[in-house]
Amino acid sequence: VEAGDKVRLDALLDDLHAADVADLIEQVGSGERAALLELMGGLDGDILSELDEGLREEVIDQLEPEELAEAVRDLESDDVVDLVEDLEGEQAEAVLEALDSADRAVVEQSLAFPEDSAGRLMQREVVMAPEHWSVGDAIDFLREAEDLPDQFYHVIVVDPRLRPVGYVTLGSILSAPRETPLKALFEDSFRTVEATRPQADVAYLFNQYHLISMPVVDDDDRLIGVITIDDAMIVLDEEHEEDMMLMAGVGDSSLSDTILETARQRFGWLFVNLLTAILASAVIALFSDVVDQIVALAIAMPIVASMGGNAGTQSLTVAVRAMATRDLTGANAWRVVMRETAVGFLNGLLYGVILGAVGWLWFDSAMLGVVLSVAMWLNLVVAGLAGIAIPLGLEKVGIDPALASGTLVTTVTDVVGFFCFLSLASWLLL
Amino acid sequence: VEAGDKVRLDALLDDLHAADVADLIEQVGSGERAALLELMGGLDGDILSELDEGLREEVIDQLEPEELAEAVRDLESDDVVDLVEDLEGEQAEAVLEALDSADRAVVEQSLAFPEDSAGRLMQREVVMAPEHWSVGDAIDFLREAEDLPDQFYHVIVVDPRLRPVGYVTLGSILSAPRETPLKALFEDSFRTVEATRPQADVAYLFNQYHLISMPVVDDDDRLIGVITIDDAMIVLDEEHEEDMMLMAGVGDSSLSDTILETARQRFGWLFVNLLTAILASAVIALFSDVVDQIVALAIAMPIVASMGGNAGTQSLTVAVRAMATRDLTGANAWRVVMRETAVGFLNGLLYGVILGAVGWLWFDSAMLGVVLSVAMWLNLVVAGLAGIAIPLGLEKVGIDPALASGTLVTTVTDVVGFFCFLSLASWLLL
Repeated sequence: VEAGDKVRLDALLDDLHAADVADLIEQVGSGERAALLELMGGLDGDILSELDEGLREEVIDQLEPEELAEAVRDLESDDVVDLVEDLEGEQAEAVLEALDSADRAVVEQSLAFPEDSAGRLMQREVVMAPEHWSVGDAIDFLREAEDLPDQFYHVIVVDPRLRPVGYVTLGSILSAPRETPLKALFEDSFRTVEATRPQADVAYLFNQYHLISMPVVDDDDRLIGVITIDDAMIVLDEEHEEDMMLMAGVGDSSLSDTILETARQRFGWLFVNLLTAILASAVIALFSDVVDQIVALAIAMPIVASMGGNAGTQSLTVAVRAMATRDLTGANAWRVVMRETAVGFLNGLLYGVILGAVGWLWFDSAMLGVVLSVAMWLNLVVAGLAGIAIPLGLEKVGIDPALASGTLVTTVTDVVGFFCFLSLASWLLL
Repeated sequence: VEAGDKVRLDALLDDLHAADVADLIEQVGSGERAALLELMGGLDGDILSELDEGLREEVIDQLEPEELAEAVRDLESDDVVDLVEDLEGEQAEAVLEALDSADRAVVEQSLAFPEDSAGRLMQREVVMAPEHWSVGDAIDFLREAEDLPDQFYHVIVVDPRLRPVGYVTLGSILSAPRETPLKALFEDSFRTVEATRPQADVAYLFNQYHLISMPVVDDDDRLIGVITIDDAMIVLDEEHEEDMMLMAGVGDSSLSDTILETARQRFGWLFVNLLTAILASAVIALFSDVVDQIVALAIAMPIVASMGGNAGTQSLTVAVRAMATRDLTGANAWRVVMRETAVGFLNGLLYGVILGAVGWLWFDSAMLGVVLSVAMWLNLVVAGLAGIAIPLGLEKVGIDPALASGTLVTTVTDVVGFFCFLSLASWLLL
């Protein structure tokens, strides 16, 4: 298809959803990508906002200013905000200039809210009604209104000072008699969110209370916008991605980053890991004369460390997930810590016995079996404790609990595992 | 509060959302939980369906049959399905018997679809209209209909054989003139899904195409239900949880499981890890005479293994996430494999040099530095390759790519790391 056949390409792409076209652009190699973009001649705004952040900059660089202006003009205000906030200064300017002044003012107001706040996520276009209206008033208003948002699910009812007091679903407006007051149809699920609240909280609220839309208010509780569930779903998805990536020490990355960028992103946590690995090695170095005398220790060492690392990662994963869903809070933290430690105690006991038997048979030394057994037991208890205490501790000091805690937990289990194993060995075997 | 003050407890709980009450029940200890439930005297159906699966069985066991019947009767059909599918045979029977026969038939039909399929997720209550209707016809129909679902966002338009042909948002029905044909208001986003499609696909489609609701069809393309975005969001959240838990080898678990249950759940993958760790140790045993002669090898070994494990986990996490979002497909798999290997090559080169220098200075042996350096380099290349190839391979043979691939990847990097390091050492240092 890449043979320059523009007509056929256009025909093919026309049938595709903007999200699929964006995926296509992401998945082809970078050489083919330039050719593809060239051939497409300009991009719809939809496609632009579906593109991966990293790639978006690259693509926008290749567009002529007029092409960019045209692409951006069709987008809703929240999509433009989403587009602009990830761009470098110059490109952001270019996009803003492409808008007419009213739209630009709206976008700039949203950009005035902190990054990752509800204010950045909301759309400004809201459908509201005064408290005293009936269903009939609302229907007449909607029939006459010219500039309704593309998608809306509730009519938000506000008091005379523009403070939201409730909302009514379109379904109930459609099915109720005209004279019913809107007040009588208020939904129980109604709750508002301040524009400065973090987006992660917004996603949590939608998920917890099964919301469809949530009015956004300013410091004086006045209605300034609305967030809909489709945007909340995207945030939820991004939060998950962030947690996974942080745990593995990958950072903000995407498949369309270049090899060099990717290598650089991962270099940092590998460096931290190098330092912690050297720490674990230093523990072994402390006992080098024991290891020198009994080579079986060097052989069995990795088993203790690996089991500890694995058990620690199990606890850690459960903890990070439970903190993300707010199932793990100050109220039950202590009980969960005890529970994880107890689980480590139990599995440590079982695997201590198993590994003790393996060590005895393998190295033909009952005492080495005992050393392995006790070291394994201690290490699994510590693994359970570290797996939960490290993320809780990180959160306590205001750091994202997912942040490469994988590396931290395995460091603890390595250091403790080697230390227990080798000090027991030097005590019992020499 | 737990002093038996029922009146105050009721007053407190009345103000809370069902989801919050469920969280409260989950977070108190198991002793307090029984007292709390006793004091609450029966549960609303909403609270029951918000409870964690494991706990739900426990709570239902404590309810009298009449209490259970009452709780379940207020729920929508998809919530009852969700409740029943996680219960044991006897409890499921009890819930079904509590329903009146029409509701029970609906629930049993949904349960006839495979687990984790779209059919289990849909609600049966749909609002549909024939193709030839105008906006006015739809409004009159809605005003007269008695049994509309609690939440609906689209009127689904069907042909005479009940096959959906498009849908119209309530917003556009409300704002269009009465004589407009519904056909003229069809949304571009319209797409249907077969009842047998996996729920993971449903969540992907909602997220990819920013859908709000999606009609569900049977084998003959006839409309049998509808899935709304709030249900899709829950599935998306569960899918993420599953991926995280599978990667860490934790399985299906929750904070309210008992210590014994949790220990048993984690025992399995720890056992797999024990076997793979023994494999890595066996590699060291192969070279036991080298290690016996140079104790520095035993000290430095864990660094090579740890760096490899970390780099492998980085690649793995990116791969599992990209597969979940369908960014990594057959079309670009080869390029991504090359990219990860190249990233491993680059970082391996850098860390090879760094670790070589560290080894030289630490152990005062240039040759040991060279051995460390080359072993590190090789291991990071293999880590990049294994991190992406293992999940791709698992998917190819039909296994969930997240399934404890963490353990598999670190096994590969341990085995390869130890082997490279020790065989190079025996070649160059002896």
